[in-house]
Amino acid sequence: VGLIGGSIGLALRSQGRYVCGYDTSAANGAVALRLGCVSEMARTLEQAVSGSEIVVMSLPVRAIVELLPAVDIAASPSATIIDTGSVKRPVMDAAARLTGSTRVIGGHPIAGKEESGPAAADAGLFRRRPFLLTSVPGTRSESIEMALSLVHTLGAYPVRMTATEHDRVLARTSHLPQILSTALATTVGPERAGLSGPGLQDMTRLAMSDSVLWRDILLSNSDNVLDAARELAQELNRITSAIGSGDGDAVLDYMIGGRTAALTLRDASV
Amino acid sequence: VGLIGGSIGLALRSQGRYVCGYDTSAANGAVALRLGCVSEMARTLEQAVSGSEIVVMSLPVRAIVELLPAVDIAASPSATIIDTGSVKRPVMDAAARLTGSTRVIGGHPIAGKEESGPAAADAGLFRRRPFLLTSVPGTRSESIEMALSLVHTLGAYPVRMTATEHDRVLARTSHLPQILSTALATTVGPERAGLSGPGLQDMTRLAMSDSVLWRDILLSNSDNVLDAARELAQELNRITSAIGSGDGDAVLDYMIGGRTAALTLRDASV
Repeated sequence: VGLIGGSIGLALRSQGRYVCGYDTSAANGAVALRLGCVSEMARTLEQAVSGSEIVVMSLPVRAIVELLPAVDIAASPSATIIDTGSVKRPVMDAAARLTGSTRVIGGHPIAGKEESGPAAADAGLFRRRPFLLTSVPGTRSESIEMALSLVHTLGAYPVRMTATEHDRVLARTSHLPQILSTALATTVGPERAGLSGPGLQDMTRLAMSDSVLWRDILLSNSDNVLDAARELAQELNRITSAIGSGDGDAVLDYMIGGRTAALTLRDASV
Repeated sequence: VGLIGGSIGLALRSQGRYVCGYDTSAANGAVALRLGCVSEMARTLEQAVSGSEIVVMSLPVRAIVELLPAVDIAASPSATIIDTGSVKRPVMDAAARLTGSTRVIGGHPIAGKEESGPAAADAGLFRRRPFLLTSVPGTRSESIEMALSLVHTLGAYPVRMTATEHDRVLARTSHLPQILSTALATTVGPERAGLSGPGLQDMTRLAMSDSVLWRDILLSNSDNVLDAARELAQELNRITSAIGSGDGDAVLDYMIGGRTAALTLRDASV
Protein backbone atom coordinates (compact mmCIF):
# COMPACT_ATOMS: atom_id res chain seq x y z
CA VAL A 1 0.00 0.00 0.00
CA GLY A 2 2.66 2.49 -1.12
CA LEU A 3 2.14 5.35 -3.57
CA ILE A 4 0.88 3.13 -6.42
CA GLY A 5 -1.04 0.54 -4.39
CA GLY A 6 -2.48 3.24 -2.15
CA SER A 7 -3.58 5.33 -5.13
CA ILE A 8 -5.24 2.33 -6.77
CA GLY A 9 -7.00 1.62 -3.46
CA LEU A 10 -8.26 5.21 -3.18
CA ALA A 11 -9.55 5.19 -6.76
CA LEU A 12 -11.33 1.84 -6.29
CA ARG A 13 -12.89 2.89 -3.00
CA SER A 14 -14.12 6.16 -4.50
CA GLN A 15 -16.10 3.88 -6.87
CA GLY A 16 -17.55 1.96 -3.94
CA ARG A 17 -15.30 -1.13 -4.16
CA TYR A 18 -14.11 -3.04 -1.11
CA VAL A 19 -10.31 -3.04 -0.88
CA CYS A 20 -8.30 -5.31 1.40
CA GLY A 21 -4.68 -4.19 1.80
CA TYR A 22 -1.53 -5.95 2.88
CA ASP A 23 1.90 -4.53 3.64
CA THR A 24 4.91 -5.88 5.54
CA SER A 25 5.23 -2.40 7.06
CA ALA A 26 2.64 -1.92 9.82
CA ALA A 27 3.33 1.84 9.72
CA ASN A 28 2.46 2.00 6.00
CA GLY A 29 -0.67 -0.04 6.68
CA ALA A 30 -1.81 2.33 9.42
CA VAL A 31 -1.38 5.37 7.16
CA ALA A 32 -3.19 3.64 4.27
CA LEU A 33 -6.10 2.73 6.56
CA ARG A 34 -6.32 6.22 8.05
CA LEU A 35 -6.29 7.89 4.62
CA GLY A 36 -8.93 5.53 3.25
CA CYS A 37 -6.68 3.83 0.70
CA VAL A 38 -8.04 0.48 1.94
CA SER A 39 -11.26 -0.74 3.54
CA GLU A 40 -9.22 -2.96 5.88
CA MET A 41 -5.66 -4.15 6.34
CA ALA A 42 -5.16 -7.92 6.33
CA ARG A 43 -2.76 -9.47 8.79
CA THR A 44 -1.37 -12.01 6.35
CA LEU A 45 -0.81 -12.14 2.62
CA GLU A 46 -3.15 -15.15 2.41
CA GLN A 47 -5.92 -13.29 4.21
CA ALA A 48 -5.62 -10.31 1.84
CA VAL A 49 -5.57 -12.43 -1.28
CA SER A 50 -7.94 -15.34 -0.62
CA GLY A 51 -11.29 -13.55 -0.95
CA SER A 52 -10.36 -11.13 -3.74
CA GLU A 53 -11.70 -10.91 -7.28
CA ILE A 54 -8.54 -9.15 -8.39
CA VAL A 55 -5.15 -9.12 -6.67
CA VAL A 56 -2.95 -6.06 -7.41
CA MET A 57 0.72 -6.57 -6.58
CA SER A 58 2.30 -3.12 -6.19
CA LEU A 59 5.89 -3.96 -5.32
CA PRO A 60 9.38 -3.71 -6.79
CA VAL A 61 9.87 -6.22 -9.63
CA ARG A 62 12.09 -8.53 -7.61
CA ALA A 63 9.52 -8.82 -4.80
CA ILE A 64 6.72 -9.46 -7.30
CA VAL A 65 8.66 -12.37 -8.79
CA GLU A 66 9.38 -13.76 -5.30
CA LEU A 67 5.80 -13.46 -4.05
CA LEU A 68 3.91 -14.58 -7.16
CA PRO A 69 3.90 -18.31 -6.25
CA ALA A 70 2.47 -17.59 -2.78
CA VAL A 71 -0.18 -15.29 -4.25
CA ASP A 72 -1.06 -17.90 -6.87
CA ILE A 73 -1.61 -20.52 -4.14
CA ALA A 74 -3.62 -18.19 -1.90
CA ALA A 75 -5.83 -16.60 -4.56
CA SER A 76 -9.18 -18.05 -5.57
CA PRO A 77 -8.99 -19.95 -8.88
CA SER A 78 -11.34 -17.41 -10.46
CA ALA A 79 -9.29 -14.40 -9.31
CA THR A 80 -7.18 -12.26 -11.63
CA ILE A 81 -3.64 -11.33 -10.59
CA ILE A 82 -2.06 -8.13 -11.91
CA ASP A 83 1.15 -6.34 -10.91
CA THR A 84 2.41 -2.79 -11.38
CA GLY A 85 6.14 -3.46 -11.78
CA SER A 86 8.41 -1.47 -14.09
CA VAL A 87 9.84 -4.44 -16.01
CA LYS A 88 7.55 -7.07 -17.45
CA ARG A 89 9.56 -10.04 -18.79
CA PRO A 90 10.62 -11.30 -15.31
CA VAL A 91 7.01 -11.09 -14.10
CA MET A 92 5.57 -12.87 -17.14
CA ASP A 93 8.35 -15.49 -16.96
CA ALA A 94 7.56 -16.12 -13.29
CA ALA A 95 3.85 -16.25 -14.13
CA ALA A 96 4.46 -18.87 -16.81
CA ARG A 97 5.76 -21.27 -14.12
CA LEU A 98 2.56 -21.04 -12.01
CA THR A 99 -0.43 -23.38 -11.93
CA GLY A 100 -2.71 -20.41 -12.46
CA SER A 101 -0.53 -18.75 -15.10
CA THR A 102 -3.42 -17.91 -17.43
CA ARG A 103 -4.97 -15.47 -14.97
CA VAL A 104 -1.85 -13.31 -14.54
CA ILE A 105 -1.73 -9.97 -16.36
CA GLY A 106 1.35 -7.76 -16.35
CA GLY A 107 0.55 -4.14 -15.56
CA HIS A 108 2.55 -0.91 -15.60
CA PRO A 109 0.89 2.43 -14.92
CA ILE A 110 2.94 5.27 -16.48
CA ALA A 111 2.36 7.67 -13.63
CA GLY A 112 4.09 8.67 -10.46
CA LYS A 113 5.42 11.52 -8.43
CA GLU A 114 8.50 12.31 -6.42
CA GLU A 115 7.01 11.34 -3.05
CA SER A 116 6.46 7.72 -2.14
CA GLY A 117 4.36 5.84 0.41
CA PRO A 118 0.60 5.85 1.09
CA ALA A 119 0.71 9.43 2.44
CA ALA A 120 1.30 10.56 -1.17
CA ALA A 121 -1.53 8.40 -2.58
CA ASP A 122 -3.87 10.19 -4.98
CA ALA A 123 -7.03 8.74 -6.55
CA GLY A 124 -6.35 10.85 -9.66
CA LEU A 125 -2.75 9.69 -10.14
CA PHE A 126 -3.60 7.52 -13.18
CA ARG A 127 -6.19 9.75 -14.79
CA ARG A 128 -5.57 10.15 -18.54
CA ARG A 129 -2.25 8.29 -18.17
CA PRO A 130 -1.26 5.16 -20.10
CA PHE A 131 -1.56 1.87 -18.21
CA LEU A 132 0.45 -0.79 -20.04
CA LEU A 133 -0.91 -4.33 -20.01
CA THR A 134 0.99 -7.45 -21.01
CA SER A 135 -0.47 -10.89 -21.57
CA VAL A 136 0.41 -14.08 -23.44
CA PRO A 137 -1.61 -15.98 -26.08
CA GLY A 138 -2.97 -18.33 -23.39
CA THR A 139 -4.11 -15.61 -20.97
CA ARG A 140 -7.74 -16.04 -19.90
CA SER A 141 -10.05 -13.54 -21.58
CA GLU A 142 -11.90 -13.00 -18.26
CA SER A 143 -8.63 -11.85 -16.69
CA ILE A 144 -7.92 -9.49 -19.58
CA GLU A 145 -11.45 -8.06 -19.20
CA MET A 146 -10.91 -7.67 -15.45
CA ALA A 147 -7.61 -5.84 -15.99
CA LEU A 148 -9.20 -3.53 -18.59
CA SER A 149 -12.00 -2.82 -16.16
CA LEU A 150 -9.47 -1.91 -13.42
CA VAL A 151 -7.65 0.45 -15.81
CA HIS A 152 -10.98 2.01 -16.78
CA THR A 153 -11.92 2.51 -13.12
CA LEU A 154 -8.62 4.32 -12.53
CA GLY A 155 -9.40 6.76 -15.36
CA ALA A 156 -6.29 5.53 -17.21
CA TYR A 157 -6.19 4.23 -20.77
CA PRO A 158 -4.97 0.70 -21.49
CA VAL A 159 -2.10 0.07 -23.91
CA ARG A 160 -1.61 -3.62 -24.68
CA MET A 161 1.77 -4.97 -25.75
CA THR A 162 3.98 -8.00 -25.22
CA ALA A 163 6.39 -8.08 -22.27
CA THR A 164 9.28 -8.07 -24.75
CA GLU A 165 8.03 -4.94 -26.46
CA HIS A 166 7.27 -3.31 -23.10
CA ASP A 167 10.79 -3.81 -21.80
CA ARG A 168 12.33 -2.60 -25.06
CA VAL A 169 10.25 0.61 -25.11
CA LEU A 170 10.57 1.36 -21.39
CA ALA A 171 14.34 1.00 -21.62
CA ARG A 172 14.23 4.15 -23.84
CA THR A 173 11.43 6.13 -22.21
CA SER A 174 12.24 5.40 -18.56
CA HIS A 175 15.37 3.39 -17.77
CA LEU A 176 17.71 5.35 -20.07
CA PRO A 177 16.53 8.74 -18.68
CA GLN A 178 17.18 7.35 -15.20
CA ILE A 179 20.83 6.38 -15.81
CA LEU A 180 21.41 9.61 -17.79
CA SER A 181 20.13 11.72 -14.92
CA THR A 182 22.32 9.80 -12.49
CA ALA A 183 25.40 10.01 -14.75
CA LEU A 184 24.82 13.76 -15.25
CA ALA A 185 24.52 14.44 -11.51
CA THR A 186 27.75 12.48 -11.00
CA THR A 187 29.53 14.40 -13.80
CA VAL A 188 28.47 17.82 -12.50
CA GLY A 189 29.34 16.80 -8.95
CA PRO A 190 28.37 18.47 -5.70
CA GLU A 191 31.18 21.08 -5.86
CA ARG A 192 29.37 22.95 -8.66
CA ALA A 193 26.02 22.80 -6.87
CA GLY A 194 25.87 26.55 -6.22
CA LEU A 195 25.85 27.30 -9.94
CA SER A 196 22.99 25.08 -11.06
CA GLY A 197 20.00 26.59 -12.83
CA PRO A 198 16.45 25.31 -13.33
CA GLY A 199 17.48 23.25 -16.37
CA LEU A 200 20.00 21.22 -14.38
CA GLN A 201 17.41 20.79 -11.63
CA ASP A 202 15.00 19.25 -14.15
CA MET A 203 17.73 17.00 -15.51
CA THR A 204 18.84 15.65 -12.12
CA ARG A 205 15.41 15.17 -10.50
CA LEU A 206 15.14 11.53 -11.60
CA ALA A 207 18.54 10.81 -10.04
CA MET A 208 16.94 11.38 -6.62
CA SER A 209 14.80 8.25 -7.02
CA ASP A 210 15.15 5.20 -4.81
CA SER A 211 18.52 3.54 -5.52
CA VAL A 212 17.57 -0.04 -4.58
CA LEU A 213 14.42 0.05 -6.70
CA TRP A 214 16.45 1.24 -9.67
CA ARG A 215 19.25 -1.27 -9.18
CA ASP A 216 16.62 -4.02 -9.55
CA ILE A 217 14.96 -2.43 -12.60
CA LEU A 218 18.27 -1.88 -14.40
CA LEU A 219 19.53 -5.40 -13.70
CA SER A 220 16.26 -7.06 -14.70
CA ASN A 221 16.20 -5.23 -18.06
CA SER A 222 19.93 -5.06 -18.65
CA ASP A 223 19.97 -6.13 -22.34
CA ASN A 224 17.54 -3.41 -23.38
CA VAL A 225 19.11 -0.79 -21.11
CA LEU A 226 22.54 -1.44 -22.66
CA ASP A 227 21.06 -1.17 -26.17
CA ALA A 228 19.37 2.11 -25.28
CA ALA A 229 22.58 3.49 -23.74
CA ARG A 230 24.46 2.59 -26.93
CA GLU A 231 21.88 4.43 -29.03
CA LEU A 232 22.19 7.49 -26.77
CA ALA A 233 25.99 7.37 -26.99
CA GLN A 234 25.69 7.37 -30.79
CA GLU A 235 23.39 10.40 -30.66
CA LEU A 236 25.83 12.16 -28.33
CA ASN A 237 28.58 11.37 -30.84
CA ARG A 238 26.56 12.93 -33.64
CA ILE A 239 26.07 16.25 -31.85
CA THR A 240 29.62 16.43 -30.44
CA SER A 241 31.07 15.65 -33.89
CA ALA A 242 29.07 18.53 -35.36
CA ILE A 243 30.23 20.83 -32.55
CA GLY A 244 33.85 19.65 -32.83
CA SER A 245 33.99 20.31 -36.57
CA GLY A 246 32.40 23.73 -36.10
CA ASP A 247 29.59 22.79 -38.50
CA GLY A 248 26.92 25.31 -37.53
CA ASP A 249 24.32 23.93 -39.94
CA ALA A 250 24.75 20.39 -38.61
CA VAL A 251 24.51 21.62 -34.99
CA LEU A 252 21.39 23.63 -35.81
CA ASP A 253 19.80 20.67 -37.63
CA TYR A 254 20.48 18.44 -34.66
CA MET A 255 19.05 20.90 -32.14
CA ILE A 256 15.93 21.41 -34.29
CA GLY A 257 15.43 17.64 -34.60
CA GLY A 258 15.67 17.15 -30.84
CA ARG A 259 13.38 20.11 -30.21
CA THR A 260 10.75 18.67 -32.54
CA ALA A 261 10.94 15.27 -30.83
CA ALA A 262 10.69 16.91 -27.38
CA LEU A 263 7.66 18.97 -28.40
CA THR A 264 5.97 15.81 -29.69
CA LEU A 265 6.71 14.07 -26.39
CA ARG A 266 5.21 16.99 -24.47
CA ASP A 267 2.09 17.25 -26.60
CA ALA A 268 1.45 13.50 -26.42
CA SER A 269 1.62 13.52 -22.62
CA VAL A 270 -0.92 16.29 -22.07
CA VAL B 1 14.07 43.75 -23.92
CA GLY B 2 13.36 40.02 -23.96
CA LEU B 3 12.86 37.83 -20.90
CA ILE B 4 16.20 38.72 -19.28
CA GLY B 5 16.47 42.37 -20.35
CA GLY B 6 12.80 42.94 -19.59
CA SER B 7 13.12 41.36 -16.14
CA ILE B 8 16.18 43.48 -15.33
CA GLY B 9 14.23 46.56 -16.47
CA LEU B 10 11.25 45.67 -14.27
CA ALA B 11 13.48 45.12 -11.24
CA LEU B 12 15.37 48.40 -11.77
CA ARG B 13 12.18 50.38 -12.29
CA SER B 14 10.63 48.91 -9.14
CA GLN B 15 13.60 50.55 -7.35
CA GLY B 16 12.84 53.89 -9.00
CA ARG B 17 15.57 53.78 -11.68
CA TYR B 18 15.09 55.20 -15.15
CA VAL B 19 15.45 52.54 -17.84
CA CYS B 20 15.85 53.23 -21.54
CA GLY B 21 15.27 50.18 -23.72
CA TYR B 22 16.28 49.27 -27.23
CA ASP B 23 15.21 46.33 -29.37
CA THR B 24 15.33 45.65 -33.11
CA SER B 25 11.82 44.22 -32.75
CA ALA B 26 9.26 47.01 -32.49
CA ALA B 27 6.69 44.48 -31.27
CA ASN B 28 8.95 43.44 -28.36
CA GLY B 29 9.54 47.10 -27.56
CA ALA B 30 5.82 47.85 -27.46
CA VAL B 31 5.17 44.95 -25.06
CA ALA B 32 8.11 45.97 -22.84
CA LEU B 33 6.83 49.54 -22.67
CA ARG B 34 3.26 48.50 -21.95
CA LEU B 35 4.35 46.13 -19.17
CA GLY B 36 6.60 48.73 -17.58
CA CYS B 37 9.88 46.91 -18.26
CA VAL B 38 11.30 50.21 -19.53
CA SER B 39 10.67 53.91 -18.90
CA GLU B 40 11.02 54.59 -22.62
CA MET B 41 12.07 52.81 -25.81
CA ALA B 42 14.89 54.44 -27.74
CA ARG B 43 14.69 54.57 -31.52
CA THR B 44 18.39 53.85 -32.06
CA LEU B 45 21.07 51.92 -30.22
CA GLU B 46 23.09 55.14 -29.82
CA GLN B 47 20.15 56.97 -28.26
CA ALA B 48 19.59 54.16 -25.76
CA VAL B 49 23.24 53.90 -24.80
CA SER B 50 24.59 57.47 -24.87
CA GLY B 51 23.03 58.82 -21.67
CA SER B 52 23.26 55.67 -19.54
CA GLU B 53 25.28 55.02 -16.39
CA ILE B 54 25.17 51.31 -17.09
CA VAL B 55 24.46 49.52 -20.38
CA VAL B 56 23.05 46.00 -20.08
CA MET B 57 23.38 43.93 -23.25
CA SER B 58 20.82 41.10 -23.07
CA LEU B 59 21.34 39.29 -26.34
CA PRO B 60 22.64 35.98 -27.67
CA VAL B 61 26.44 35.73 -27.35
CA ARG B 62 27.09 36.22 -31.06
CA ALA B 63 25.05 39.44 -31.18
CA ILE B 64 26.80 40.76 -28.06
CA VAL B 65 30.19 40.25 -29.70
CA GLU B 66 28.98 41.96 -32.89
CA LEU B 67 27.41 44.95 -31.14
CA LEU B 68 30.06 45.59 -28.47
CA PRO B 69 32.17 47.98 -30.64
CA ALA B 70 29.13 50.13 -31.48
CA VAL B 71 28.06 50.21 -27.83
CA ASP B 72 31.61 51.13 -26.78
CA ILE B 73 31.60 54.08 -29.20
CA ALA B 74 28.12 55.29 -28.22
CA ALA B 75 28.42 54.90 -24.45
CA SER B 76 29.70 57.69 -22.20
CA PRO B 77 33.34 57.15 -21.13
CA SER B 78 32.20 56.85 -17.52
CA ALA B 79 29.52 54.23 -18.29
CA THR B 80 29.80 50.59 -17.36
CA ILE B 81 28.93 47.94 -19.95
CA ILE B 82 27.69 44.53 -18.84
CA ASP B 83 26.17 41.64 -20.80
CA THR B 84 24.07 38.63 -19.83
CA GLY B 85 25.36 36.09 -22.37
CA SER B 86 25.74 32.38 -21.63
CA VAL B 87 29.41 32.10 -22.69
CA LYS B 88 31.98 34.56 -21.40
CA ARG B 89 35.31 34.10 -23.23
CA PRO B 90 34.05 35.47 -26.59
CA VAL B 91 32.60 38.52 -24.83
CA MET B 92 35.72 39.22 -22.78
CA ASP B 93 37.90 38.66 -25.87
CA ALA B 94 35.79 41.13 -27.85
CA ALA B 95 35.94 43.58 -24.92
CA ALA B 96 39.75 43.38 -24.83
CA ARG B 97 39.86 44.82 -28.36
CA LEU B 98 37.83 47.94 -27.41
CA THR B 99 39.08 51.41 -26.49
CA GLY B 100 36.93 51.28 -23.36
CA SER B 101 37.81 47.68 -22.49
CA THR B 102 38.37 48.36 -18.78
CA ARG B 103 34.71 49.23 -18.19
CA VAL B 104 33.27 45.99 -19.61
CA ILE B 105 32.06 43.36 -17.13
CA GLY B 106 30.88 39.93 -18.24
CA GLY B 107 27.60 38.93 -16.63
CA HIS B 108 25.54 35.75 -16.57
CA PRO B 109 22.43 35.45 -14.42
CA ILE B 110 21.68 31.78 -13.62
CA ALA B 111 17.94 32.14 -13.92
CA GLY B 112 15.31 31.68 -16.57
CA LYS B 113 12.08 30.06 -17.46
CA GLU B 114 10.56 28.25 -20.40
CA GLU B 115 8.82 31.30 -21.84
CA SER B 116 10.78 34.01 -23.60
CA GLY B 117 10.14 37.62 -24.58
CA PRO B 118 9.16 40.67 -22.49
CA ALA B 119 5.66 39.26 -21.83
CA ALA B 120 7.34 36.70 -19.55
CA ALA B 121 9.46 39.31 -17.73
CA ASP B 122 9.45 39.06 -13.95
CA ALA B 123 11.11 41.47 -11.51
CA GLY B 124 11.75 38.53 -9.15
CA LEU B 125 13.42 36.29 -11.76
CA PHE B 126 16.92 36.78 -10.30
CA ARG B 127 16.02 36.80 -6.62
CA ARG B 128 18.32 34.54 -4.59
CA ARG B 129 19.89 33.25 -7.82
CA PRO B 130 23.60 33.36 -8.66
CA PHE B 131 24.70 36.14 -11.03
CA LEU B 132 28.14 35.30 -12.40
CA LEU B 133 30.50 38.19 -13.05
CA THR B 134 33.73 38.03 -15.04
CA SER B 135 36.40 40.69 -15.20
CA VAL B 136 40.11 40.94 -16.03
CA PRO B 137 42.99 42.31 -13.89
CA GLY B 138 42.72 45.71 -15.64
CA THR B 139 38.95 46.12 -15.17
CA ARG B 140 38.05 49.48 -13.58
CA SER B 141 37.02 49.11 -9.94
CA GLU B 142 34.15 51.59 -10.51
CA SER B 143 32.68 49.26 -13.14
CA ILE B 144 33.02 46.25 -10.84
CA GLU B 145 31.23 48.23 -8.12
CA MET B 146 28.50 49.24 -10.57
CA ALA B 147 27.98 45.61 -11.65
CA LEU B 148 27.84 44.44 -8.03
CA SER B 149 25.29 47.17 -7.33
CA LEU B 150 23.15 45.99 -10.28
CA VAL B 151 23.28 42.38 -9.03
CA HIS B 152 22.31 43.56 -5.55
CA THR B 153 19.37 45.55 -6.94
CA LEU B 154 18.12 42.43 -8.72
CA GLY B 155 18.13 40.49 -5.44
CA ALA B 156 20.71 38.09 -6.91
CA TYR B 157 24.05 37.19 -5.37
CA PRO B 158 27.26 37.86 -7.27
CA VAL B 159 29.74 35.06 -7.98
CA ARG B 160 33.01 36.32 -9.43
CA MET B 161 35.18 34.12 -11.62
CA THR B 162 37.35 34.32 -14.73
CA ALA B 163 35.78 33.87 -18.15
CA THR B 164 37.83 30.68 -18.57
CA GLU B 165 36.51 29.20 -15.34
CA HIS B 166 32.97 30.34 -16.17
CA ASP B 167 32.96 28.58 -19.54
CA ARG B 168 34.47 25.42 -18.04
CA VAL B 169 31.86 25.22 -15.25
CA LEU B 170 28.86 26.17 -17.40
CA ALA B 171 29.80 23.50 -19.94
CA ARG B 172 28.98 20.98 -17.15
CA THR B 173 26.04 22.68 -15.43
CA SER B 174 24.25 24.04 -18.50
CA HIS B 175 25.63 23.14 -21.94
CA LEU B 176 26.05 19.41 -21.26
CA PRO B 177 22.49 19.09 -19.87
CA GLN B 178 21.26 20.84 -23.03
CA ILE B 179 22.88 18.41 -25.48
CA LEU B 180 21.92 15.44 -23.29
CA SER B 181 18.29 16.49 -23.27
CA THR B 182 18.38 16.93 -27.04
CA ALA B 183 20.14 13.60 -27.62
CA LEU B 184 17.66 11.83 -25.33
CA ALA B 185 14.62 13.30 -27.11
CA THR B 186 16.17 12.18 -30.41
CA THR B 187 16.87 8.67 -29.07
CA VAL B 188 13.36 8.19 -27.69
CA GLY B 189 11.85 9.59 -30.87
CA PRO B 190 8.32 10.84 -31.47
CA GLU B 191 6.91 7.35 -32.14
CA ARG B 192 7.16 6.46 -28.43
CA ALA B 193 5.60 9.74 -27.33
CA GLY B 194 2.42 8.17 -26.03
CA LEU B 195 4.34 6.18 -23.42
CA SER B 196 6.32 8.96 -21.79
CA GLY B 197 5.98 9.60 -18.06
CA PRO B 198 6.76 12.65 -15.95
CA GLY B 199 10.46 11.69 -15.66
CA LEU B 200 10.96 11.78 -19.42
CA GLN B 201 9.07 15.08 -19.55
CA ASP B 202 11.56 16.58 -17.09
CA MET B 203 14.48 15.18 -19.05
CA THR B 204 13.36 16.54 -22.42
CA ARG B 205 12.14 19.99 -21.33
CA LEU B 206 15.52 21.66 -22.05
CA ALA B 207 15.47 20.21 -25.57
CA MET B 208 12.55 22.55 -26.34
CA SER B 209 14.82 25.61 -26.01
CA ASP B 210 15.63 27.92 -28.92
CA SER B 211 17.77 26.02 -31.45
CA VAL B 212 19.63 29.02 -32.92
CA LEU B 213 20.55 30.36 -29.49
CA TRP B 214 21.95 26.98 -28.53
CA ARG B 215 23.85 26.47 -31.77
CA ASP B 216 25.74 29.68 -30.97
CA ILE B 217 26.38 28.75 -27.33
CA LEU B 218 27.64 25.26 -28.20
CA LEU B 219 29.92 26.51 -30.99
CA SER B 220 31.35 29.34 -28.89
CA ASN B 221 32.24 26.98 -26.03
CA SER B 222 33.03 23.90 -28.08
CA ASP B 223 36.28 22.86 -26.33
CA ASN B 224 34.65 22.76 -22.90
CA VAL B 225 31.43 21.19 -24.22
CA LEU B 226 33.41 18.36 -25.84
CA ASP B 227 35.37 17.80 -22.59
CA ALA B 228 32.14 17.68 -20.60
CA ALA B 229 30.53 15.27 -23.08
CA ARG B 230 33.59 12.99 -22.78
CA GLU B 231 33.26 13.00 -18.99
CA LEU B 232 29.58 12.14 -19.27
CA ALA B 233 30.33 9.31 -21.72
CA GLN B 234 32.83 7.90 -19.20
CA GLU B 235 30.21 8.03 -16.45
CA LEU B 236 27.71 6.32 -18.72
CA ASN B 237 30.33 3.64 -19.38
CA ARG B 238 30.79 3.08 -15.65
CA ILE B 239 27.09 2.47 -14.99
CA THR B 240 26.51 0.39 -18.14
CA SER B 241 29.57 -1.75 -17.35
CA ALA B 242 28.18 -2.44 -13.89
CA ILE B 243 24.77 -3.30 -15.38
CA GLY B 244 26.33 -5.43 -18.12
CA SER B 245 28.37 -7.49 -15.67
CA GLY B 246 25.32 -7.95 -13.42
CA ASP B 247 27.23 -6.43 -10.51
CA GLY B 248 24.35 -5.39 -8.23
CA ASP B 249 26.62 -3.80 -5.61
CA ALA B 250 28.38 -1.65 -8.23
CA VAL B 251 25.04 -0.59 -9.76
CA LEU B 252 23.68 0.29 -6.32
CA ASP B 253 26.84 2.24 -5.40
CA TYR B 254 26.60 4.19 -8.62
CA MET B 255 22.91 5.01 -8.15
CA ILE B 256 23.54 6.10 -4.54
CA GLY B 257 26.44 8.32 -5.63
CA GLY B 258 24.31 10.03 -8.29
CA ARG B 259 21.42 10.41 -5.87
CA THR B 260 23.67 12.09 -3.32
CA ALA B 261 25.03 14.49 -5.95
CA ALA B 262 21.49 15.29 -7.17
CA LEU B 263 20.26 15.98 -3.64
CA THR B 264 23.20 18.34 -3.08
CA LEU B 265 22.37 20.13 -6.34
CA ARG B 266 18.75 20.51 -5.25
CA ASP B 267 19.56 21.75 -1.75
CA ALA B 268 22.09 24.26 -3.07
CA SER B 269 19.57 25.75 -5.45
CA VAL B 270 16.81 26.38 -2.89
